[in-house]
Amino acid sequence: MSVWTKLRCGCVLLAVAVAAKAAPTDQSPPATQPTVEQWGVFDTSLKGPSSGNPFVEVALSAHFTSGNRSLDVPGFYDGDGNYRIRFMPPTQGEWEFRTTSNISELSDQTGELRCIAPSGTNHGPVRVRNTYHFAYADGTPFVLIGTTCYGWAQQPDAIEDRTLASLKASPFNKVRMRLLPGKTAPNFYPYPQDSAGKWEKDRFNIDYFRHLEKRIGQLGDQGIEADLILFDPYHKGEMQWFNTMDDAGDDLYLRYVVARLSAYRNVWWSLANEYGQVKGKTDADWDHFFQVVAAKDPYGHPRSIHNAQKYYDPNKPWVTHASIQNGSAVADFGRAVLYRELCPKPIVYDEICYEGNIDRRWGHLSPEEMVKRFWLGTIAGTYVGHGETYSNPDKISWTSEGGELLGHSAPRLAFLRQILESGPADGIEPIDEFYNTHVGGKAGEYYLVYFGDEKPTQWTFSLPRDPPNKNALAEGMKFHVDVLNTWNMTTTPVDRTFVIGKLAGAAYPAVGDPAVVLPGKPYMALRIERLK
Amino acid sequence: MSVWTKLRCGCVLLAVAVAAKAAPTDQSPPATQPTVEQWGVFDTSLKGPSSGNPFVEVALSAHFTSGNRSLDVPGFYDGDGNYRIRFMPPTQGEWEFRTTSNISELSDQTGELRCIAPSGTNHGPVRVRNTYHFAYADGTPFVLIGTTCYGWAQQPDAIEDRTLASLKASPFNKVRMRLLPGKTAPNFYPYPQDSAGKWEKDRFNIDYFRHLEKRIGQLGDQGIEADLILFDPYHKGEMQWFNTMDDAGDDLYLRYVVARLSAYRNVWWSLANEYGQVKGKTDADWDHFFQVVAAKDPYGHPRSIHNAQKYYDPNKPWVTHASIQNGSAVADFGRAVLYRELCPKPIVYDEICYEGNIDRRWGHLSPEEMVKRFWLGTIAGTYVGHGETYSNPDKISWTSEGGELLGHSAPRLAFLRQILESGPADGIEPIDEFYNTHVGGKAGEYYLVYFGDEKPTQWTFSLPRDPPNKNALAEGMKFHVDVLNTWNMTTTPVDRTFVIGKLAGAAYPAVGDPAVVLPGKPYMALRIERLK
Repeated sequence: MSVWTKLRCGCVLLAVAVAAKAAPTDQSPPATQPTVEQWGVFDTSLKGPSSGNPFVEVALSAHFTSGNRSLDVPGFYDGDGNYRIRFMPPTQGEWEFRTTSNISELSDQTGELRCIAPSGTNHGPVRVRNTYHFAYADGTPFVLIGTTCYGWAQQPDAIEDRTLASLKASPFNKVRMRLLPGKTAPNFYPYPQDSAGKWEKDRFNIDYFRHLEKRIGQLGDQGIEADLILFDPYHKGEMQWFNTMDDAGDDLYLRYVVARLSAYRNVWWSLANEYGQVKGKTDADWDHFFQVVAAKDPYGHPRSIHNAQKYYDPNKPWVTHASIQNGSAVADFGRAVLYRELCPKPIVYDEICYEGNIDRRWGHLSPEEMVKRFWLGTIAGTYVGHGETYSNPDKISWTSEGGELLGHSAPRLAFLRQILESGPADGIEPIDEFYNTHVGGKAGEYYLVYFGDEKPTQWTFSLPRDPPNKNALAEGMKFHVDVLNTWNMTTTPVDRTFVIGKLAGAAYPAVGDPAVVLPGKPYMALRIERLK
Repeated sequence: MSVWTKLRCGCVLLAVAVAAKAAPTDQSPPATQPTVEQWGVFDTSLKGPSSGNPFVEVALSAHFTSGNRSLDVPGFYDGDGNYRIRFMPPTQGEWEFRTTSNISELSDQTGELRCIAPSGTNHGPVRVRNTYHFAYADGTPFVLIGTTCYGWAQQPDAIEDRTLASLKASPFNKVRMRLLPGKTAPNFYPYPQDSAGKWEKDRFNIDYFRHLEKRIGQLGDQGIEADLILFDPYHKGEMQWFNTMDDAGDDLYLRYVVARLSAYRNVWWSLANEYGQVKGKTDADWDHFFQVVAAKDPYGHPRSIHNAQKYYDPNKPWVTHASIQNGSAVADFGRAVLYRELCPKPIVYDEICYEGNIDRRWGHLSPEEMVKRFWLGTIAGTYVGHGETYSNPDKISWTSEGGELLGHSAPRLAFLRQILESGPADGIEPIDEFYNTHVGGKAGEYYLVYFGDEKPTQWTFSLPRDPPNKNALAEGMKFHVDVLNTWNMTTTPVDRTFVIGKLAGAAYPAVGDPAVVLPGKPYMALRIERLK
């Protein structure tokens, strides 16, 4: 018999215990069968030993089955003799499970649940779709507009609450965040200290993880992906030992994190920030870390790693998408697209310098430049990440600690997101990218022409033929044009229809008057949609 | 006993036969021990069966030994019952060999040779050095200035001779060339036809290969690498069957080509031109072809593959360098460097559109633009390839058939080559590439600043700190500056020394008057060398 409580984000907590070992012939359901939303969190706990070191000595997992589908889900120790298994059901219907453990009282425990339809903003976890793009598991396109708040979940509660509120009002649907604290979180670490103040490197601080997963869940409720940075080179003071942990310590950490957090549908795994700067880790270590995460995460959450100068090969099979630090790649036309060509996976320029006013060359992009870089990345068929570092009286910055957004790019990124979410579900692809650096879209259907700093007063309607889609355009096709001011966030329809003529060279010019009048201002774009 | 003749390029031909099977105790050298230059061609022939199909039925190789070094070298059938083994000795001294075959008369044949010092322009084969660059085996830097003459070795002799003469007078030290003929070589194919005109797909046309290897040897004599394109999608008419050969046919072809040609030190293997357009070959086929070539070539000649729209992952272990078709990548600042970041191998932009005047958008770069693209690639730490398509009364073009260079870029590329060959032996690396798109060189020692189309009248002396080489510069270092006009091919020294001050932000500005006066013309560059 189970007592359960429905929590936020479809999380079900079996507060007491799972059903006792069921005889194979006992097919009767428990009196109160727990239900959980598809892609919600089913959470069950079991009592087991609290002596010794349960983090190291106890192995626990559960085999979940529904029809001919099954998943192996790792369990984890949650303190005070409590062991926990969290499961994100990927399909609706009845699910059963049976535990396996090296401890007899934790082994062969069984239970079941009923998975029901998702509700609200629950579209499931994000997956790669159409090679270079993303979608939620339910098929809804995921138009990534990311930001970075490295340490937002290691702040005083009041600041964290302000960050959540700021994110709710923002266009951002992915946040890069460190799993490990920086210098801002004294006495609040993922590892405990013993009574002599010595770090216990083979145990975890349960309170730290409970806090973290509360914040991850709240992001999920707001429809925001939590891009969790598992390692980073920034440990100061007491935590410097973390990066020099031995192999067993690294694996224990990764397995624990994955077992605790992978049932949250909005989790992404960023193996590291500036991975090449993490001392003491070899390329083989990073390969191994990816493999551990990929093997232990039952759901295949997105996996990437972020570079400083040295790049990790994103074509390795366990990398789902490239996570790039390179502002230059989106600072002018014709650049961002190049990474796509060597890496047929989503290209996410997660760090492109920050909007702000500090005296570091990576920390004072104008808001106009930040928005431009998003557009340059977008028309190249890639994704871009925001960051912000304005000095202010609170002495916290958005990208380091969170708090409030003080800049001016966010509303323009909301405008971009709205444009893209009403655009092609397959995402924006570059069009004829060897010759046209200003055009992205979906060949034959939809085009975005972006002008950046240029201030044209006219654009002559002509659509490039896309070499991989040679037959997407044909004489006589009709198009509607909207003039977009990407800074002022206005959409101005052109009140006539453009009809293309015969292929001339490598493009289809409009017949009749091909002139689209533009205001001679910067940051203009055109949205061109085919009329059927 | 052996009769041998010294041929061009250090090639030794053992015209009659190798020593008879030597008893293990017989250590006496033959009366006339053949000698061959290091990295020259040692060529020995054996008599064997001419009946059946020797190309398919006879296996032959030789194990070459010198001290504790040994190499397995494949043999090949050369017609009329002659079997041949070619060997490029990688080290000087005495070498012995013993053959292995499934035919007893070809097996356990032994011989020896003495490998002497190389002469003339023989620097050995080209290898990757310093991750992104090349050097000859003797350590001489190889500053790649490539061109493309796809079909030059399948023309009438008079045209081929003209091409060789044109190359000799040119700066080009690598030529991309098809191994298989296009439409310009009727009745001259690598495969024979039987008396009924049917293609014999499991035999080779010896005359075709003898002609080809003569031309490869002549390129080598001129110090030019032969970048041999093994597959391509351009077969017309009778040869269309080639791309739909079965797996056994593909392997037979690759093994034969590698056995015949790999002893030529100037051979590079380009698995294909526009590989994605070669119908009927899967990604797994290309992986396999690379593996066959890598396994059968005893010397590890450079291996690459050239793309049209679809790119092959150059990080795969059997690819030695990226061979890229993408003119856009070198058409503006800040682009070419990006491929380096995802691929830590030499990046060769082998096709960037052609200088010329034909009515195809890939075929009418101005010579100024061609030269600019070389410079843009160079300062980004990459290499660029030339091509030329001027329409002319002969109705042949340099890049398709060879003949004469009609354009105006080649002398400027010679100027570039001369600059680079007197520059850092380690090659040009980008300097602070996330923030400085105009600067390449060797941090702390040597800088090239390139301005492209810009027409500055002054440059303020300031050297960027290179993040991977943070301590390469220090206050008080002195520098000499030459102003280069890359189009007019002039080098104008600035008649004073520049001394850098303290680090200011991310660069070291000159103390005193930092102004370098420039003429307000396009295509200017600066060469900045540290004075010690």
